[in-house]
Amino acid sequence: MKVRILVSFKNSVLDPQGQTVKNALLTLGYGFVKDVRQGKVFELDLEGIDEAEARRLIPEIADKVLANPIIEKFSWDIMP
Amino acid sequence: MKVRILVSFKNSVLDPQGQTVKNALLTLGYGFVKDVRQGKVFELDLEGIDEAEARRLIPEIADKVLANPIIEKFSWDIMP
Repeated sequence: MKVRILVSFKNSVLDPQGQTVKNALLTLGYGFVKDVRQGKVFELDLEGIDEAEARRLIPEIADKVLANPIIEKFSWDIMP
Repeated sequence: MKVRILVSFKNSVLDPQGQTVKNALLTLGYGFVKDVRQGKVFELDLEGIDEAEARRLIPEIADKVLANPIIEKFSWDIMP
């Protein structure tokens, strides 16, 4: 089973990497880009657990290991 | 219009960050994690272009700016 977890800064947290990318895109002429937020993606390959267990454990993993819950939020889904 | 672009290493490229996360998860008892790949996610907020233009320009942006096509691949979609 493959799971994709997206981790990004909370909206209230400044994202200097995203700002840098946005400025680069504006300089290159992509003026239609109004905002950029950058985050991390984790693709996990799971074996030996069923979907119910995965649905319980993935948020635990994301909260404890992959994201810093003080400044980051995460979302996840099971990949088809 | 919001667009999400995922950038990750090609499968043939070693991913030391992902390996480190995997080892951390195994140490913490999540033995069902068989593999971890880590990548980047960019969420772009676009203004003043229609969907057809976005579908033409987003791959160009990803290829030229966000990903290194030598070692990275990308996928993207328009967010609902």
